[in-house]
Amino acid sequence: MKKMWSGRFESDSSKLLEEFNASIGFDKNLYEQDIAGSKAHAKMLGVKGIISKDDADNIITGLDVVLSEIKSKKYEFKTEDEDIHMSVEKRLSEIIGKELGGRLHTARSRNDQVALDFRLYVLKQNREIFTKICDFIDTLVEISKEHIDTLMPGYTHLQHAQPVSLAYHLMAYAFMFKRDCERLISSYERNNLSPLGSAALAGTPHRIDREFVARELGFAGVTQNAMDSVSDRDFALEILFNISVLMMHTSRLCEELILWSSQEFGFITISDTYSTGSSIMPQKKNPDVAELIRGKTGRVNGNLIALLTTMKGLPLAYNKDMQEDKEGVFDSANTALASIVILNEMTKEIKFNTKNMLNATKKGHLSATDLADYLVREKNIPFRIAHFITGKAVAFAENLNLDLSQLNANQLKQIDENLDENAMKFLDLNASKEARSSLGGTANESVKLQIKQMNEWLEITKGYFKKQG
Amino acid sequence: MKKMWSGRFESDSSKLLEEFNASIGFDKNLYEQDIAGSKAHAKMLGVKGIISKDDADNIITGLDVVLSEIKSKKYEFKTEDEDIHMSVEKRLSEIIGKELGGRLHTARSRNDQVALDFRLYVLKQNREIFTKICDFIDTLVEISKEHIDTLMPGYTHLQHAQPVSLAYHLMAYAFMFKRDCERLISSYERNNLSPLGSAALAGTPHRIDREFVARELGFAGVTQNAMDSVSDRDFALEILFNISVLMMHTSRLCEELILWSSQEFGFITISDTYSTGSSIMPQKKNPDVAELIRGKTGRVNGNLIALLTTMKGLPLAYNKDMQEDKEGVFDSANTALASIVILNEMTKEIKFNTKNMLNATKKGHLSATDLADYLVREKNIPFRIAHFITGKAVAFAENLNLDLSQLNANQLKQIDENLDENAMKFLDLNASKEARSSLGGTANESVKLQIKQMNEWLEITKGYFKKQG
Amino acid sequence: MKKMWSGRFESDSSKLLEEFNASIGFDKNLYEQDIAGSKAHAKMLGVKGIISKDDADNIITGLDVVLSEIKSKKYEFKTEDEDIHMSVEKRLSEIIGKELGGRLHTARSRNDQVALDFRLYVLKQNREIFTKICDFIDTLVEISKEHIDTLMPGYTHLQHAQPVSLAYHLMAYAFMFKRDCERLISSYERNNLSPLGSAALAGTPHRIDREFVARELGFAGVTQNAMDSVSDRDFALEILFNISVLMMHTSRLCEELILWSSQEFGFITISDTYSTGSSIMPQKKNPDVAELIRGKTGRVNGNLIALLTTMKGLPLAYNKDMQEDKEGVFDSANTALASIVILNEMTKEIKFNTKNMLNATKKGHLSATDLADYLVREKNIPFRIAHFITGKAVAFAENLNLDLSQLNANQLKQIDENLDENAMKFLDLNASKEARSSLGGTANESVKLQIKQMNEWLEITKGYFKKQG
Amino acid sequence: MKKMWSGRFESDSSKLLEEFNASIGFDKNLYEQDIAGSKAHAKMLGVKGIISKDDADNIITGLDVVLSEIKSKKYEFKTEDEDIHMSVEKRLSEIIGKELGGRLHTARSRNDQVALDFRLYVLKQNREIFTKICDFIDTLVEISKEHIDTLMPGYTHLQHAQPVSLAYHLMAYAFMFKRDCERLISSYERNNLSPLGSAALAGTPHRIDREFVARELGFAGVTQNAMDSVSDRDFALEILFNISVLMMHTSRLCEELILWSSQEFGFITISDTYSTGSSIMPQKKNPDVAELIRGKTGRVNGNLIALLTTMKGLPLAYNKDMQEDKEGVFDSANTALASIVILNEMTKEIKFNTKNMLNATKKGHLSATDLADYLVREKNIPFRIAHFITGKAVAFAENLNLDLSQLNANQLKQIDENLDENAMKFLDLNASKEARSSLGGTANESVKLQIKQMNEWLEITKGYFKKQG
Repeated sequence: MKKMWSGRFESDSSKLLEEFNASIGFDKNLYEQDIAGSKAHAKMLGVKGIISKDDADNIITGLDVVLSEIKSKKYEFKTEDEDIHMSVEKRLSEIIGKELGGRLHTARSRNDQVALDFRLYVLKQNREIFTKICDFIDTLVEISKEHIDTLMPGYTHLQHAQPVSLAYHLMAYAFMFKRDCERLISSYERNNLSPLGSAALAGTPHRIDREFVARELGFAGVTQNAMDSVSDRDFALEILFNISVLMMHTSRLCEELILWSSQEFGFITISDTYSTGSSIMPQKKNPDVAELIRGKTGRVNGNLIALLTTMKGLPLAYNKDMQEDKEGVFDSANTALASIVILNEMTKEIKFNTKNMLNATKKGHLSATDLADYLVREKNIPFRIAHFITGKAVAFAENLNLDLSQLNANQLKQIDENLDENAMKFLDLNASKEARSSLGGTANESVKLQIKQMNEWLEITKGYFKKQG
Repeated sequence: MKKMWSGRFESDSSKLLEEFNASIGFDKNLYEQDIAGSKAHAKMLGVKGIISKDDADNIITGLDVVLSEIKSKKYEFKTEDEDIHMSVEKRLSEIIGKELGGRLHTARSRNDQVALDFRLYVLKQNREIFTKICDFIDTLVEISKEHIDTLMPGYTHLQHAQPVSLAYHLMAYAFMFKRDCERLISSYERNNLSPLGSAALAGTPHRIDREFVARELGFAGVTQNAMDSVSDRDFALEILFNISVLMMHTSRLCEELILWSSQEFGFITISDTYSTGSSIMPQKKNPDVAELIRGKTGRVNGNLIALLTTMKGLPLAYNKDMQEDKEGVFDSANTALASIVILNEMTKEIKFNTKNMLNATKKGHLSATDLADYLVREKNIPFRIAHFITGKAVAFAENLNLDLSQLNANQLKQIDENLDENAMKFLDLNASKEARSSLGGTANESVKLQIKQMNEWLEITKGYFKKQG
Repeated sequence: MKKMWSGRFESDSSKLLEEFNASIGFDKNLYEQDIAGSKAHAKMLGVKGIISKDDADNIITGLDVVLSEIKSKKYEFKTEDEDIHMSVEKRLSEIIGKELGGRLHTARSRNDQVALDFRLYVLKQNREIFTKICDFIDTLVEISKEHIDTLMPGYTHLQHAQPVSLAYHLMAYAFMFKRDCERLISSYERNNLSPLGSAALAGTPHRIDREFVARELGFAGVTQNAMDSVSDRDFALEILFNISVLMMHTSRLCEELILWSSQEFGFITISDTYSTGSSIMPQKKNPDVAELIRGKTGRVNGNLIALLTTMKGLPLAYNKDMQEDKEGVFDSANTALASIVILNEMTKEIKFNTKNMLNATKKGHLSATDLADYLVREKNIPFRIAHFITGKAVAFAENLNLDLSQLNANQLKQIDENLDENAMKFLDLNASKEARSSLGGTANESVKLQIKQMNEWLEITKGYFKKQG
Repeated sequence: MKKMWSGRFESDSSKLLEEFNASIGFDKNLYEQDIAGSKAHAKMLGVKGIISKDDADNIITGLDVVLSEIKSKKYEFKTEDEDIHMSVEKRLSEIIGKELGGRLHTARSRNDQVALDFRLYVLKQNREIFTKICDFIDTLVEISKEHIDTLMPGYTHLQHAQPVSLAYHLMAYAFMFKRDCERLISSYERNNLSPLGSAALAGTPHRIDREFVARELGFAGVTQNAMDSVSDRDFALEILFNISVLMMHTSRLCEELILWSSQEFGFITISDTYSTGSSIMPQKKNPDVAELIRGKTGRVNGNLIALLTTMKGLPLAYNKDMQEDKEGVFDSANTALASIVILNEMTKEIKFNTKNMLNATKKGHLSATDLADYLVREKNIPFRIAHFITGKAVAFAENLNLDLSQLNANQLKQIDENLDENAMKFLDLNASKEARSSLGGTANESVKLQIKQMNEWLEITKGYFKKQG
């Protein structure tokens, strides 16, 4: 079979080349975008009189037949057709005839077709990932609402630091995911421009209307320089990066879920539905989901570095190296979607063992900072010196194998005369949490404000892409 | 010497630990941000009555002394002081006394201090890189204005594709750099929030005013959850990514500058001022600057992946791993600034050998697409068939060792009867360029529009950060 | 359907978990390794009397049935079976009964099974990639033999540097690929050890014979600590790295093939069989293969960084994150194999345009170093001064728009009196090449020695893995 | 000041170029290698009569003066000298005169000089890192010897899996580090070849003796193709990769040290000497060293990907991009050395809280596999069915809030009749550990064998580089 571009070639492609070169094995995923793009292009060719109105209509009807064939799995993707663009055009020509089918590619090139299809795909995944993150934020907020009073140790360096509420801890993640959403919106807006009509690299002599095509496809506008448009993969890099940061965030949460479900922490119980067993050890119940998500941080980072590497040092305009752009983006987008969806469902079913959390707060002298702050506020001692005095109190307690909160008034006084009876009440862990009512703090009122702000943001933003359509 | 946090410790730090742990070797770069942050914090403490107004004033005066000592290189950064925060506080205490100096750290932690300083630094570098990119776009636009009529081969796959103007080719880069600017602005806006007042991870019981501090430091607002605020390094990842994409763009331009200055292309001559010689080969004149910039793509990608890797799987809140966040950002920011500045200066001095460019257009049958489009428009032949006929014409010319544009009317007709005399004028290379007047195309009118749009954007955007202050 | 490990579970897995968790979609590629491992394990269980000899025989016969079912595509891989190990065991139990099939997993765990299967796979791909590289070195040597006298410019900084032979240039690549082979052998030897018998992480109470199993499977020995054995993925990282370096080397060669086939260089013509055309530009003939291979450097680097990232910070022993180890290795190995095979075939058909190469040597003052060396040897002038004098001669020629080799005796003398008539013969380009006869140089005798050494190495080494079996 | 290569240049370098281009800021680290190389080269030039014996001697004496100036910090590294090679040569010429100093660069180029210096550096760091790893293995072995009887939970998925000894767990790391050593040796042997005498890219017409120089510098031989030799950075990539794997291993150990020193695990206490405090929380004692090492995994991975990226797609031979090769290698080597040294010292001072470890083994039904294995061996029940029965027993215990090991004979029988009285003794945790005496298992005899094998290997291998000199 002759290739569509074979006019000047004397020999056929080798079988080896055909297989190595073909992208149809993966770019068939773009069939919807490809056909939508072709329909919009054909319509414009008709409207502008570049082809006849009838020809345009017949092409569009033919493209709909191709679409339904693919959707109903009656379609055969063949390696020798190279890519989704050639495959669709060829099948179209079989359906409506070569004469008519051969008119579709007027005033465009595979270079701008692939730029269009891939961009439409990225924008779509952008929207879907955004939606799934919002759903997960919802879950975090819901759980947080129930755990404003649940005391647990706040950690730094994985050492007990200060008492916080579970709500507060979970809201920290909610705010990370909010930033992920903001990045997705910002990337979407920057890249929501149609490249079609760029043709090979320099535009076309046909009197096309690029803005018409853009409107048909739901873009906000058109790109401005065709040579840039066919060589630009910034939009793909952006989604890869946004996903890498997203997965980094989920890897942190999953690390904690794994820790929390260990025998040592015992803070949570993951439901049987989202746990797995061992082939050899009958007692095992493993947090596989959290581990897998954490592990998938690797692949999405790999995909990001892969495309950055591929693009490095490429001269203008299109180079075949750029065919390597898609698989990594497909993989990262699917990874992000699957991860965030299952993380959401798993989280909904987590049982929080609040008693274990509470018990944990009793180790690690969690109210030490409060004691120091007491010395500052009530005794007017410079913080640095108050810190030192409290450190001594901690050492004192450690030597007795006690927690700071277990010291009595006598012992306190023994350490430093400023540690008087009033100091005692600052050792209470719940009081400690409630004291941290500064903006962004862990006190109930602060956390409630955070939840309120998040809900307001969700309400405004969640529908963002609905308006985009 | 005792560490400031050593109250509860029985033994001193080992020398080995001191050296391994210290960040002052690199975070001393943050001294301006650190002192500015401390001044704003002290002022707020005074205003809120957490320390006395006098104490606040004296602390601020002391901090100004520290600042001027550092600026005048009279200051000694010592490994045993660990980091810039401890170093400044210690020196301050030497100047104004331990009693007073010890009050500065009230209601804050190194965790939120480092978050603040680093964020201020990133925002500043963000502004500076933005400005330098704008300058370079200016240069590209200026050169483009002079070369709207300069014909050169447009390439795909590094093969001659269609005739374009040098202006058009350079404007493709201008549009890439415009997107780089847009990304920088978007990251800036997303991250322009003050974390100070987050304290260790949970806020503080002192009645602080975080928004006051934020305003003092020029932030647009404050972060919303303290645990997130001390663990968040998204802002650092964003600038690393933005720089990676920027350097990918420059690597592409530099690849072309290297190709163009080769003996084979001969399209440009880089000035002696920006070239270097060889230690052994007396005749050599090498495009070192372009090569180095291309090579530096590696290091900025490395810095990006480094921080993504470091952050992976870290539980909340601050972990010492995060101290690894800074060096890579410092390096990428300095790399980007140095690269874009020298690229700009070098480009200004490039001599374009337009005659060689013109000669190059005469190889590679650059008007083949025009011939096919002629058949479509004038002979109503479907594009796919027109493409095939033209392919035959190319093969015909190749066999005669001629360029398509060198065929005569007789020869054309011999190939296909539709290739009549009128076809001849579509073989003209300049006409070919001028025909591509679609939006974003290479025709003079299209390129002039691109230049106009870019200038308008520059005018509006260039001052963006001036208004920010 | 109940999972095999579900004894302690009260609820079934969610559908979502089943899909997210399953590795069978990709680890089915390991079916041969899995069945071979199970056969060796069963045989050992029988020999050691852990199960009866008859049971062992029947299990082995059953496993052969499973193998033939998979090979003849009659086998169904089901998501609910999780992975290749469970899938094979389940099908085995259907064939030979649950009672018998249930005995196979005695004294082993999926943890050591996956370690075994994956290691066997990596070792096999190691051998195959090695063989394909050797074939390609053969091709480079064959072409080199024919082009010992073919003069071309040697480049540094992509600027003409000194005249070399095409043979010499190609042999540089042969030596890179030789190192790739050496790395593959070294990794093979280091990792050719059986982990089976490690069981979950701590060995097994059954009286197994690990060395027996190792011998059956062709390993050179067994691993030494079971906890390490089930957590170790160094062998996978090594092949990923070896492939990254290999692909870096091919990316350099492909960059040159792309440059050489450009209209500007014109050094080679890639055959039609290994070129492709454009959908829009009828004249185009693109070096797609070389571009794709260059582009694929990205994905293999991505796969390397992905696994390094995934493994970071994992506590002992097996964690589910490690399931992410395989897809990247499969992808890199397949990429390397496909790339090196097609690069070999394409290279065999390349037409070298030696005339264009020769013409190119006449630009760039390629004999400048020879002139300097003449001054050193015949006039006893220190090299640094000789370099300076020659630099002046180059500037002189440039101003006349001549190549250094085109200057006449009079002109030479005019530049410096030491540049006498004898100097003239050192300007000859062929003489220049022949003069560089130092070990590793470009003179014919040096290149012939390199070819001889390479052939000797190939002869000894090529059969390396044949002996391994 | 004129550059040494400036003969053909009409204008001086711009200041900007000088700073951007200079590598002396970091390659000054190579001064010892550079001077050693120059001395060997000069000696050879004298022996071969390329320069006079006297000249050679005087140059060598001069180089020794330069060396001692640098060592005694009397030396000034100047940006305008570009790199360490030019700097040393210039200073040499100041000391012994231009006439004589100018003879040193005969028959070599900066291209092979940098290849030489960098290779010598890499080989040296290779040896040093190897030695430090051996020291650390020693420590792990010493601690293991004392903890063969220390019971702790073995983990998979961070869930309690089977009882193991602390010795066994630590020996798993010892075997990882052994592989790191093996990789370093293998890389060393592969790259221990001198490139000097490659000159610019094509060898030299001077009658040099490369093997003489190689011997002088302690190399095992010479490289075979000069064009490859000046473009090859495989040796640098290998050390970067070896370090990445090493740091991945240390990141895993450090993750465990961090977990083990948490309040929840309480398995170890890190000494005050290797811990740090908090600026705000007086009670904090943080495992900073382990965190920092874990975090540094990022930077070494970054350095690896940076060089792989930089080398991608570079045509032969030397390109200035390759100047980017050094900083990352310096950084990774220093990181690896510092990390392994402090990790060793810190580990020596760790206090193992064996009582907490023992208590932990009583959670998680650690003897479940033993029970299943009992059913297999004594009751001839297929493992898969035995697994299921034991799973039921675990569920039974869980419902009573007991550990499997706490069930009595009656309860066992209630679950399944095969769980008779004899089964009881297989629930003992120490017996469980001792039962796993297969090769590589956790039983005392197995662990003792592992220690013995490791000591034998250390004895043979530790001196490896001593013999190399």
